[in-house]
Amino acid sequence: MSNSPNVAVLVGSLRKGSFSRRLAKAMMALAPSELKLSIVEIGDLPFYNEDLETESPPAEWKAFREKIAASDALLFVTPEYNRSVPAVLKNALDVGSRPYGKSVWDGKPGAVVSNSPGAISGFGANHHLRQSLVFLNVPAMQQPEAYIGEVHKLLGEDGKIANADTEEFLRGYMAAFAGWIGRNRG
Amino acid sequence: MSNSPNVAVLVGSLRKGSFSRRLAKAMMALAPSELKLSIVEIGDLPFYNEDLETESPPAEWKAFREKIAASDALLFVTPEYNRSVPAVLKNALDVGSRPYGKSVWDGKPGAVVSNSPGAISGFGANHHLRQSLVFLNVPAMQQPEAYIGEVHKLLGEDGKIANADTEEFLRGYMAAFAGWIGRNRG
Amino acid sequence: MSNSPNVAVLVGSLRKGSFSRRLAKAMMALAPSELKLSIVEIGDLPFYNEDLETESPPAEWKAFREKIAASDALLFVTPEYNRSVPAVLKNALDVGSRPYGKSVWDGKPGAVVSNSPGAISGFGANHHLRQSLVFLNVPAMQQPEAYIGEVHKLLGEDGKIANADTEEFLRGYMAAFAGWIGRNRG
Amino acid sequence: MSNSPNVAVLVGSLRKGSFSRRLAKAMMALAPSELKLSIVEIGDLPFYNEDLETESPPAEWKAFREKIAASDALLFVTPEYNRSVPAVLKNALDVGSRPYGKSVWDGKPGAVVSNSPGAISGFGANHHLRQSLVFLNVPAMQQPEAYIGEVHKLLGEDGKIANADTEEFLRGYMAAFAGWIGRNRG
Repeated sequence: MSNSPNVAVLVGSLRKGSFSRRLAKAMMALAPSELKLSIVEIGDLPFYNEDLETESPPAEWKAFREKIAASDALLFVTPEYNRSVPAVLKNALDVGSRPYGKSVWDGKPGAVVSNSPGAISGFGANHHLRQSLVFLNVPAMQQPEAYIGEVHKLLGEDGKIANADTEEFLRGYMAAFAGWIGRNRG
Repeated sequence: MSNSPNVAVLVGSLRKGSFSRRLAKAMMALAPSELKLSIVEIGDLPFYNEDLETESPPAEWKAFREKIAASDALLFVTPEYNRSVPAVLKNALDVGSRPYGKSVWDGKPGAVVSNSPGAISGFGANHHLRQSLVFLNVPAMQQPEAYIGEVHKLLGEDGKIANADTEEFLRGYMAAFAGWIGRNRG
Repeated sequence: MSNSPNVAVLVGSLRKGSFSRRLAKAMMALAPSELKLSIVEIGDLPFYNEDLETESPPAEWKAFREKIAASDALLFVTPEYNRSVPAVLKNALDVGSRPYGKSVWDGKPGAVVSNSPGAISGFGANHHLRQSLVFLNVPAMQQPEAYIGEVHKLLGEDGKIANADTEEFLRGYMAAFAGWIGRNRG
Repeated sequence: MSNSPNVAVLVGSLRKGSFSRRLAKAMMALAPSELKLSIVEIGDLPFYNEDLETESPPAEWKAFREKIAASDALLFVTPEYNRSVPAVLKNALDVGSRPYGKSVWDGKPGAVVSNSPGAISGFGANHHLRQSLVFLNVPAMQQPEAYIGEVHKLLGEDGKIANADTEEFLRGYMAAFAGWIGRNRG
């Protein structure tokens, strides 16, 4: 375990122009240099099905599990679908949690960022995800919480945060997350 | 709208020997004869991705949406994965909710049954699903609630409920659901 | 049961100038004339304690239970405290739910309105309250949902809604609630 | 800050013979000796009301806030009322969180134990409480989770845990909590 933790970034939307992906990238650029962040893709994982596990786990599952296993911490950036977590992100949690006793999430500190074009900012997704993190033993940073509303107004054409206050908030968020990781790593 | 409502049954597990599927079938057999219940499969739906919607919605999405649109009510039978709804079921909710303004769920009365081999009986999945149903405008039956614990002990080899009390409970549950549908159909 | 349902209105804040109380009153004024709405006070109810029930239930509990028992439907208007339901409102739910088997809530249709001066609009309180309503067998209207943000800007000095769109939304909300009551009353 | 953290124990039931209180005491007896645990009473706190804060905060509020402020960590042991947190415990959270900017909870590591005579073990209360702890910046131990079901069978006449496996589980729980406190204290 080095002093530069590897942080896997999981994005809860598959849309190419996804606000969540753009927000994730902007946050990665604002992180303290000690954090090594990279997005781990989740869009090609077949739905979790225990029969597949028993017969022959899909190659995509194996590759995904290896990437998460090699990371030290987890940053989730997600929209809300129907007041809860998008299926593609929930599936990544489910795939990584199995087989029984071999969860790749176990003990890795995490942080949850939700966003929406509306005002409520993905609050429902944020807390449903947190409920899963309890079971998965991912210590979740409590404060600052990050509910990013009206996200479409926030991201400039250049991919940077178009609002100085929010940029400062997100910079502070990533600094706090680095501290959280430091206290709660393996 | 006939007097015999069509009820779409959605099962939250893909495993062939799934307890949820077996429980769903047992409950279908215990329903009042006025209800016409059939399982609508959800395992082949690609993850919701707005780009696909815009370009060309997958045939599986279209077929699924048509089946739900043709139903009058909804019965969800689901396990819990990591304290929440399995991705495959959440994806079905997401796919059916789109495109914007054309949700196929809107106004159809529903009921939620969770189950697990353990004691807690999928409580987390049950209520996370209910939170989505608020947004989707699926009036959800409140009582009786159905949290089916130790489900592996409950289902006999013949697919029937191996416990008279539970059979009676589930029969009453389906009768109450028929009443709920009657009051809350379109 | 008359055609003019009595609706008990429960307000989740005790502050004299409470936004929730003012919002509740504004909504009462916008309701269809068939609804007979009145606020039932909850601030003087001793904390639920089963020992008190056994020995001698407080007079405040008795009076409150009688008022709810005499109502046909329930409107909850609440702020959020610490991402959940204010204790004073949760206590009212608890007191009314007892003694075992004699809940005064059972079967009465309800609606939930949350509000906050911020953007997130009491989403956490709204859905935690809904989870209790499942157990209490209060059929809860799903749509429209009411999350009233920046509530301090919304209420004029005269107690009326200072924004035509929101007034229209709330008028429609109360009309939908009247329909919900009609379908789901005893 | 000494090496022997003071842990405030909050019990979510007022009943004299409360299972939660008995469970809390049993867990205190099983804790590592480095933890100094004591129950902080919450039954006499007037409901939170911002008007009281402004005029003159009740003496009970002041005394309670001082006790929590003097503690290093928090153990919550609670039943579930109507699928959520009992009002008396929610009120303690609300009172301690105010006035704005002076929350006494901030940064103190915590753990949540729910229990019930039934099977579901207070899962709803456990996770609703956790949602509040996010806002209150109480880092909450994720694993082990503690859902104590059929609690009435678990506690012997002598106040000790009447089941060796559960005793071992709870001893391990308190040891894990000591580790959690060590990593997440101020």
